[in-house]
Amino acid sequence: MFSKDIYINRRQRLKDKMNKGIALILGNIDAAMNYPDNTYHFRQDSTFLYFFGLDYQGLAAVIDFESGEEILFGNDFDIDDIIWMGPQPKLKDNALKVGVTQTHPLSKLKEIVSKAHQQGRKVHFTPPYRGENILKIGDLLNVNPLKVKEMHSIEFIKACVSLRSIKEPGEIEEMERHMAVAYQMHTTAMKMAHPGVTEQQITGILEGVSMSGGGPISFPIICSVRGETLHNHVHPNTLKSGDLLLVDAGSESPLHYATDHTRTSPVGGKFTSKQKDIYQIVVDTNNAALAATKPGITYKEVHLIAAKTMTEGLKSLGLMKGDVDEAVAQGAHALFMPHGLGHMIGLDVHDMEDYDQRLVGFDEEIQPSTQFGLAALRLGRRLQPNFVVTNEPGMYFIPDLIDQFKSEKKFTDFINYEMVETYKGFGGIRIEDDVLITETGSRVLGERIPINPEDVEAMVQSGK
Amino acid sequence: MFSKDIYINRRQRLKDKMNKGIALILGNIDAAMNYPDNTYHFRQDSTFLYFFGLDYQGLAAVIDFESGEEILFGNDFDIDDIIWMGPQPKLKDNALKVGVTQTHPLSKLKEIVSKAHQQGRKVHFTPPYRGENILKIGDLLNVNPLKVKEMHSIEFIKACVSLRSIKEPGEIEEMERHMAVAYQMHTTAMKMAHPGVTEQQITGILEGVSMSGGGPISFPIICSVRGETLHNHVHPNTLKSGDLLLVDAGSESPLHYATDHTRTSPVGGKFTSKQKDIYQIVVDTNNAALAATKPGITYKEVHLIAAKTMTEGLKSLGLMKGDVDEAVAQGAHALFMPHGLGHMIGLDVHDMEDYDQRLVGFDEEIQPSTQFGLAALRLGRRLQPNFVVTNEPGMYFIPDLIDQFKSEKKFTDFINYEMVETYKGFGGIRIEDDVLITETGSRVLGERIPINPEDVEAMVQSGK
Repeated sequence: MFSKDIYINRRQRLKDKMNKGIALILGNIDAAMNYPDNTYHFRQDSTFLYFFGLDYQGLAAVIDFESGEEILFGNDFDIDDIIWMGPQPKLKDNALKVGVTQTHPLSKLKEIVSKAHQQGRKVHFTPPYRGENILKIGDLLNVNPLKVKEMHSIEFIKACVSLRSIKEPGEIEEMERHMAVAYQMHTTAMKMAHPGVTEQQITGILEGVSMSGGGPISFPIICSVRGETLHNHVHPNTLKSGDLLLVDAGSESPLHYATDHTRTSPVGGKFTSKQKDIYQIVVDTNNAALAATKPGITYKEVHLIAAKTMTEGLKSLGLMKGDVDEAVAQGAHALFMPHGLGHMIGLDVHDMEDYDQRLVGFDEEIQPSTQFGLAALRLGRRLQPNFVVTNEPGMYFIPDLIDQFKSEKKFTDFINYEMVETYKGFGGIRIEDDVLITETGSRVLGERIPINPEDVEAMVQSGK
Repeated sequence: MFSKDIYINRRQRLKDKMNKGIALILGNIDAAMNYPDNTYHFRQDSTFLYFFGLDYQGLAAVIDFESGEEILFGNDFDIDDIIWMGPQPKLKDNALKVGVTQTHPLSKLKEIVSKAHQQGRKVHFTPPYRGENILKIGDLLNVNPLKVKEMHSIEFIKACVSLRSIKEPGEIEEMERHMAVAYQMHTTAMKMAHPGVTEQQITGILEGVSMSGGGPISFPIICSVRGETLHNHVHPNTLKSGDLLLVDAGSESPLHYATDHTRTSPVGGKFTSKQKDIYQIVVDTNNAALAATKPGITYKEVHLIAAKTMTEGLKSLGLMKGDVDEAVAQGAHALFMPHGLGHMIGLDVHDMEDYDQRLVGFDEEIQPSTQFGLAALRLGRRLQPNFVVTNEPGMYFIPDLIDQFKSEKKFTDFINYEMVETYKGFGGIRIEDDVLITETGSRVLGERIPINPEDVEAMVQSGK
């Protein structure tokens, strides 16, 4: 974990933003896979991690915004636990590591929280996303758990967002350090992109590279020769010559900061010229987005700059036509990129997505759009130094979506459907980097994973 | 999945055992890691898998034990889902694959279940182990979710246990086929057992071997040079010469049957003579248990035969003393093996552990013990052909437990504490196989992973 001063400082800044009530910050418990004691990799709640740093299950914290008290709750282990888990430090000692002096057994949590609740003090919490914590909050507040979800605190969320959006130097160092594992994952996938290998084999190896490198994957790996399926979490295919392999994968650092990159490789090591044309447009779009990513611009504008670059490229190939600005304004390009350009990244791969995407990615100035494509943009607001975002333009030929747009005669002024038909079966390409907003511009975190077509081809070929 | 006749037959046999009410069998939904859309590997509920076979999220089933009806509930996907997930078959078509003709959207589930509940008909379900399904059942039955856990049906559990305990030929084939992946995992670990390698690296690679081989790990990997910690899920150590590396790891087959093996390797490839003495006792105990494992014997007896073999071995080394039968009867050996010999294995690594261990592993004839050590035995009842169990004797030198027993002057007639003190720091050894009960005896499933000390040493050395 970070030094205790970091956590003390974060809590102090939180207290500076909040006036009334108490914050209830529940850690996670182990998540049951198929029975209570068979659990997934433990993942601590990110809000708990941010303010209290302790990375094991069964903890809870309360911050009293009026008295200023900070209390950690948890149970110490007995000899039976020690037989199964080995010797364990006491909660009291762990709490000191994050600058907290007041600790209680978990049984005391209900007394303190329900007392505050009964006194009419606001109990602030972020939206719970696991059933166990929903049940827990229901129990603590003595309300039916089915009512808990609507009770979260917008004020508390906004305070957390304002702190967590701007990464501290230590957070940036941790993220940058872990980019080496991301690099290894993606170059490993490139080297494996040969006919006869299965998607499942590559996925397995990448999970292993991530875990060996320090932590589990930061989200379910997308590894597919059907890249036009945006979030393809099944891996049934065997690679064959001529396929494009899209790999969207990331790893959690030891302190649980996420990486998130996408690369698309030609199976066997050589793009066809048709593939290379589309691939180059996506590279150009990624680079245009990177150049535009800087403090002061809204991320919505960066998204639209990317859309314009993409539309120009598609027009040069004859897949689109007409006025580029007008096509982008109407959202015609969303046939080819129905998702947003990117999102914030930090302790979560979609950072703070448990809170409420509108409060994380938007504000009074920039509101979410309802236009198809743009509506999927997760981040619209103005960029500030030390934000970290992903830039992930993609281009896809999705047969069902093409059929739908065509049958509804959508954007016939901008889309050359006759030519688009000949791209059915092409698949999809996405290229994604993790980008730090600096004082004056932005830079890719870590050594950039091979991106230019000849570099990707060379990396694939080196795995032969 | 299996052929539809398998599922039809299972449901028919279930209906033969049940008379009144309806069964509510909830599939799992994706489990949130750190926000709702960032999920762990999907794991379907085993009871749902057993009776309905469909391996995706958001499904539920009802079996009416009076009318005989079988209904599957789920929602079909729309174009927005298809963009993100690719084309998806309809529930109606999936249902036919498992022999079910009646399907409804999920919204209809509440109507049917709450109607039955209001009519005073028993709604049978197994104990829910995920918060989301606890909340769901609360909603369906219109009761506070905090009350749901106590409402499960013992009668329904007993019917499920009687079916699932006896593995069908197809299940045994599936399990045996996947033993090749278990073999690969454990021999990979042996080959990596060299100084300078980290536990985390090995764990990562093993997760990759499992995933590449067909499915995720079947439980969190134990990979530790501190093998005396029974369920050690942290991996902070770097291997060094003279360490013993204990690896307890398994993989899920494509149909989600578990493997579960443990091997203990000498780091660098050579047991010390002190290590070899203890190791050989554990091998002998494993073999004695295997010979005793057969239809008609109670598993409690097999456990006690293993305990006796182990005690004899410890006595020959001078670590124990006195009358062997009496030492075992009093549980003195549990200082060295505080856990049970094994458990059933199938769709779950501890098969059916979500139900209630007493209903799975015990019956009117054989009840759980309260004696330290024996109390941790998960399976006591009489073995039948086509049970599959793990045999996993182990021997550990747990400093905290030694101190506790010694200070309480426990078993001073049987334990030579002076000598035991010299084994503090030794660590632990466990050796575990998956064993099928046959008509006349038992056999290890799959090719046996190297077990004899010289074979393990050779495998480690081959990885140099």
